[in-house]
Amino acid sequence: MSLLVVGSMAFDSIKSPFGEVERVVGGSATYFSLAASYLTPVRLVSVVGKDFPKGTLDMLSARGIDLQGLKVAEGITFQWKGYYEYDLNVAHTVKTDLNVFENFAPVLPASYRESRYVFLGNIDPKLQLDILAQVREPKIVALDTMNFWIGKSPQLLREVIRSVDIVVVNEAEIRELTGEFNLVKAARKMMRMGPGRVVIKRGEYGVLYLSGGEIFAAPAYPLETIFDPTGAGDSFAGGFMGYLASRDGAALTEMDYRLATIYGSAIASFTVEAFSTERLQGLSREEIDSRLAAFRSLTEFRV
Amino acid sequence: MSLLVVGSMAFDSIKSPFGEVERVVGGSATYFSLAASYLTPVRLVSVVGKDFPKGTLDMLSARGIDLQGLKVAEGITFQWKGYYEYDLNVAHTVKTDLNVFENFAPVLPASYRESRYVFLGNIDPKLQLDILAQVREPKIVALDTMNFWIGKSPQLLREVIRSVDIVVVNEAEIRELTGEFNLVKAARKMMRMGPGRVVIKRGEYGVLYLSGGEIFAAPAYPLETIFDPTGAGDSFAGGFMGYLASRDGAALTEMDYRLATIYGSAIASFTVEAFSTERLQGLSREEIDSRLAAFRSLTEFRV
Repeated sequence: MSLLVVGSMAFDSIKSPFGEVERVVGGSATYFSLAASYLTPVRLVSVVGKDFPKGTLDMLSARGIDLQGLKVAEGITFQWKGYYEYDLNVAHTVKTDLNVFENFAPVLPASYRESRYVFLGNIDPKLQLDILAQVREPKIVALDTMNFWIGKSPQLLREVIRSVDIVVVNEAEIRELTGEFNLVKAARKMMRMGPGRVVIKRGEYGVLYLSGGEIFAAPAYPLETIFDPTGAGDSFAGGFMGYLASRDGAALTEMDYRLATIYGSAIASFTVEAFSTERLQGLSREEIDSRLAAFRSLTEFRV
Repeated sequence: MSLLVVGSMAFDSIKSPFGEVERVVGGSATYFSLAASYLTPVRLVSVVGKDFPKGTLDMLSARGIDLQGLKVAEGITFQWKGYYEYDLNVAHTVKTDLNVFENFAPVLPASYRESRYVFLGNIDPKLQLDILAQVREPKIVALDTMNFWIGKSPQLLREVIRSVDIVVVNEAEIRELTGEFNLVKAARKMMRMGPGRVVIKRGEYGVLYLSGGEIFAAPAYPLETIFDPTGAGDSFAGGFMGYLASRDGAALTEMDYRLATIYGSAIASFTVEAFSTERLQGLSREEIDSRLAAFRSLTEFRV
């Protein structure tokens, strides 16, 4: 079943202890849709400038990603410049140029309005609400956000949070959103705001998934070489939501949400093996299955 | 089978965001031996001053911990003063008074020399070597250390590392010991120095266990309330080594090491629920079993 994603498409300039790249393709919607495309059809909503490479759009189409909702606007694509130090869990932003995103007012193509699975990537909460209002009867809506919006539009953000089923954020973000340092308390507080499930991304330490009575802890895959963590969180969300959408029609159990967490973690573990979307755009089903099996072996024990 | 531990016994003064305590009982050997005592007989080697509470020694004895190797010296017990901020993974030391530890030259009681399982807790590497030389035919020797000794006695420390089977350290320590930031690379480098297995403690993020070809990731138990992380690492090591010693006679498999990791994590999760050894001294087998089951449920998924 189709999965709708709204988020950024961007040029990233990134420096990490392992190298440096200028103006490579990035953006939350780019990583999300590529990751999800291995599991379910994806409908993308975003905006790029005329300067965005046609080759990348062709590559996304070739992966079955529906680009009817992508606007190619006059002007320059969104740009992010940042760096990582040895602690790859912390991205340092040098510069953000919204460019074509500044006046983005997305109108969903008719075919998108029936989407049952929706991911509201990290953009202005006002846009997140606008998009959500245009989807007729979503089954599962998940949301990501970041400190910028938590500070700038807390009221609007609360309104979006009230309307979604799952919040997918990192440690620092859930602490800021709830004012609770302890992650279990923070998640419970978040769930009292509306969403029934919370996913907390902890970078190289993996992910905590919490619902009413359950907590599931998934490690990150311990790689010997992490080139660039950019897009790992979005790739995680793509794998997570992609798996849930692929199970459409089935009654989802807690075990499905756990497996969705592992799919997300497995696909994200490829993203960080190279800069940009390089590693993510040509995965085989065998590679994904073998990484899933590696997660099994990484966590298996018998009491 | 008996498990020999050498390490500190101390008075701790601790401030955390959740409270403050003065001169409570602590020390690596105290936490380690209490944790291990639920799984195997323990032989303790340490030194305290005349000021150390008789009640605590009685409590340790009552838990079956052999105190023949404990010296009660003229003078004052070792004291540590420190604090934690919200990030409980980082202990800030205000003051360390070695006191009776300054002239500690342990001689093992005859009965201790046949110990098959040995834990060299975080003390001067010179003492660790002295102790090890007095054990006749150890089967498994594990070692902990800290930044203080890595900086002060790197050569001696390398000599101890060469002679042990398992190194149990935290993230910062293995990075400092090996000069590698990436934990998988650091562990492989450590194994080339001698030990066949490495356990990396990551505080609230759990533990990585690595051997030749295996990596096992165990989460920490996500508690809503962590009062005081002091002693968590030593309690982990006690549960880990305690389980291995309890399997004496069996051919240990990788699954045993994984289960040892879970025992360590489960017992450590009690330690942090209260200040000092309060929570650790009166555990029931049912509580431990139920926490083991909770770890099962925390990590279970089906591909």
